[in-house]
Amino acid sequence: MASVRIREAEEGDCGDILRMIRELAEYENLSHQVKISEEDLRADGFRENPFFHCMVVEILPANGEPQGPRVVGYGLYFFTYSTWKGRSVYLEDIYVIPEYRGQGIGSKIIKKVAKVALDNGCAQFRLSVLDTNKRAMELYKALGAQNLTEVEGWLSFCFEREAMRALAGN
Amino acid sequence: MASVRIREAEEGDCGDILRMIRELAEYENLSHQVKISEEDLRADGFRENPFFHCMVVEILPANGEPQGPRVVGYGLYFFTYSTWKGRSVYLEDIYVIPEYRGQGIGSKIIKKVAKVALDNGCAQFRLSVLDTNKRAMELYKALGAQNLTEVEGWLSFCFEREAMRALAGN
Repeated sequence: MASVRIREAEEGDCGDILRMIRELAEYENLSHQVKISEEDLRADGFRENPFFHCMVVEILPANGEPQGPRVVGYGLYFFTYSTWKGRSVYLEDIYVIPEYRGQGIGSKIIKKVAKVALDNGCAQFRLSVLDTNKRAMELYKALGAQNLTEVEGWLSFCFEREAMRALAGN
Repeated sequence: MASVRIREAEEGDCGDILRMIRELAEYENLSHQVKISEEDLRADGFRENPFFHCMVVEILPANGEPQGPRVVGYGLYFFTYSTWKGRSVYLEDIYVIPEYRGQGIGSKIIKKVAKVALDNGCAQFRLSVLDTNKRAMELYKALGAQNLTEVEGWLSFCFEREAMRALAGN
C-alpha cells in the first residue's frame, strides 16, 4: 500500500512547490496575486539564512509499483518573533492537492510544524486564514488554535512596493 | 535644539526596549501577556541569524546640555516570506513614548523600515494593529497601507505552547 511521508523540501522540489502555490492561490480566488518564480524560491529558501523553510508531503508507491514518489502537499513556514512571548513560527502556506484531502495530511503537516517550533524553543505557532475558508478554520480550532482577530481584535495591514517606495523616498 | 536620530539597536539597548515593550502592551491593555525577559531579547536579537532586528529612536541633547541621548521609541521587525510576492518585512512593534508623540516620529520609523525592506529586495511590508487603535490605523492608511483583513478577509490564528505540545505529542 502507498504510504505518506513528510520531509524537508530540497531545491529540486521548487517546481512542485510553485505549482502548488498557484493551486492554493486559485482555491482562494487570488491567483492573480502570485508574482513569484521558481528561481525566487530557489534563491530565497535554499541559501544561508534562508527567508523560509518548507516541508513537502510525498506519497511513496507500494513495493513493485513502477512510479517514483509523488509530491502532494507542502507547508511553508519561517521563524518570527513576538515581543510578548519570544520565538515563534509562522506557517505561511499549508496545502494538500484535492485528491488527497480528507486523509488527515493537513493535520500531519500542522503537527510536524508544531514539533519544529518546539524543537526551536518557540512559544507560538501562528498562521492566517481567509474568513471564507470555514473548513480550514474548523480544523485549526479543532487542533487547538485561537482566532486572534476574533478574540483580541488584530487586523492585518500591508504596504505594497509602490507605497514603500513613496515612504522611503521622503 | 534637541534632535531625533533613528539607529540600529545594540545589545545594550535591551533594557530600554523591554521597558517600552511593556508600556506598549499596557497601552493595548494586554500587559499580562508579556512573558519575555531582557535576557531573551539579548539572546534572540543579537546573535548570528537573529530572530529579529530593532531600531531605536534617540533624542540627542542640544550642545552644552549635560545629559546623554535618551531612547524614546523603537521599531522591532523581522524578515518573512510571501509565496505570492516573495521577501517581506514584518513590523512586529512600533512605539513612541507618550511625551514624544505627535511629532512625526512614528512616521519616521515606518519610513526607515520601508527603506530597509526595499534595500533587502522585499515586496511587502506588513504589520498588525488592534481594531481599537483608530489612531494607528489612520496613520498607516495615510501612509499608504491597506487593511488586508477588511479587503481580503485575512484572520490571524495562533497555537499557544500547550496546544503545540498536544500536537507534537501525537
